[in-house]
Amino acid sequence: MDNRAIGIFDSGLGGLTCVKKVMEIMPNENIIYFGDTGRVPYGTKSKETIIKYVRQNINFLETFDIKFIIIACGTASSAALPNIQDEIKTEVIGVLEPTCREAIAVTKNGKIGVIGTQGTINSGKYLETINRINPDTEVYSTACPMFVPLVENGYTEGEVARIIVEEYLAPVKEKGVDTLIMGCTHYPLLRKEIQKFMGDDVRLIDSGAAAAVEAKAHLLKNGSLCGSENAGTAKYYVSDTVVGFEELGSAFLDKHIEGSVHKIDIEKY
Amino acid sequence: MDNRAIGIFDSGLGGLTCVKKVMEIMPNENIIYFGDTGRVPYGTKSKETIIKYVRQNINFLETFDIKFIIIACGTASSAALPNIQDEIKTEVIGVLEPTCREAIAVTKNGKIGVIGTQGTINSGKYLETINRINPDTEVYSTACPMFVPLVENGYTEGEVARIIVEEYLAPVKEKGVDTLIMGCTHYPLLRKEIQKFMGDDVRLIDSGAAAAVEAKAHLLKNGSLCGSENAGTAKYYVSDTVVGFEELGSAFLDKHIEGSVHKIDIEKY
Repeated sequence: MDNRAIGIFDSGLGGLTCVKKVMEIMPNENIIYFGDTGRVPYGTKSKETIIKYVRQNINFLETFDIKFIIIACGTASSAALPNIQDEIKTEVIGVLEPTCREAIAVTKNGKIGVIGTQGTINSGKYLETINRINPDTEVYSTACPMFVPLVENGYTEGEVARIIVEEYLAPVKEKGVDTLIMGCTHYPLLRKEIQKFMGDDVRLIDSGAAAAVEAKAHLLKNGSLCGSENAGTAKYYVSDTVVGFEELGSAFLDKHIEGSVHKIDIEKY
Repeated sequence: MDNRAIGIFDSGLGGLTCVKKVMEIMPNENIIYFGDTGRVPYGTKSKETIIKYVRQNINFLETFDIKFIIIACGTASSAALPNIQDEIKTEVIGVLEPTCREAIAVTKNGKIGVIGTQGTINSGKYLETINRINPDTEVYSTACPMFVPLVENGYTEGEVARIIVEEYLAPVKEKGVDTLIMGCTHYPLLRKEIQKFMGDDVRLIDSGAAAAVEAKAHLLKNGSLCGSENAGTAKYYVSDTVVGFEELGSAFLDKHIEGSVHKIDIEKY
């Protein structure tokens, strides 16, 4: 038993898809969430810059009494984590390995599509990881740089989302994939348009949820799940104003988080 | 005569619309440009965060021997500059006043539209400034949060740009404005779709170009134009990798800037 909190971070709001899943499957855990809203998006930035940001985010989370870190951001998990894994004191996982394992477990025809930000796709880490786990898998990747702005500006359904989803996903659909990794935690908000275009037979993998499931497996194995029988608490920190985050986050998590969101200066860490 | 350089900054690439105009109308001036590509976009961030970033950008430019600063960013000019103008040692202008004056000079029916980022429109500074210069003007403002992502991802023409331009600009067009301030230096790249939707009779004001013209007037008045008869030099600094900036910037300015772009750590300033 270990009653310390789980630290979770993302470039912004997207990581709340992971928080939601943690709350669902580990309701007694305490959570410290950091959304780097002052420097979002990560996906268009260079590997060097992303690594710097990730180091600072982890330094910040480690100022709390935490037992585990989930990097609930596709770009940070693929473009940064593999390079700095060894220097992190706390046990940490990203979304990369969990989503790859889940995709390999569910694919029937061995053809997996991967969508993510430019930073994620440029890293080549999805291809590398899937091939390491199962070299017989065919992987088709494509960057979808407009998906984060679409989600952040409320274009999750309708004509604009439909055209852009079609434009980005057509090459992957053409390859006949039966499983599609949504390698960015913002993308599940576009799920309806993505599923409509790909067809009902294609299984979509939600990276934030996959990471939550893997985190639970780690904590179980280590005997370090929370021993309390009370509902866990959650504290949220952001690097820009709390206002928009409180509102969108409450809608997103389907619970009031007003009053539990605090602004910090991430550049100090 | 003053042979020191002019410092210009923007959140990213957009400010090069201003650099281009400076090179055209003041070809002997030396330029130090900073694009905050590691923290772009500004327009979706809070006033507090934008002010912090602008202070750092000015601190950085002031490490050079400069005589004048142009803030070639609509969000920084409206959401930050009015609050910190007094603390800046170097003479500085933003895009706000020059565009307002130009719009008031060209409007015939006294109805001016203003488009900008959420940060710019929320600041209310365009409305305030236009009304201060000419209280009889009618001002209709609207935020266009998807325009920067559209430009940055190459959606400057075609169906998606057309739909979003139409959606954002319909309320302003309905009011019968004859002049439209493009209050963000990225927007001139969408000029074709904006002009098509607004109609040929509507005059579009380019904020980067307007600021360059005003800067020249200041330097002339102060007798501090560059005394050299040689073509001016330009150095470019960015807070993310130089690679994308060199390529896009060269296309944008229609001249090779490879080798003159350097990466800096803006968080140190």
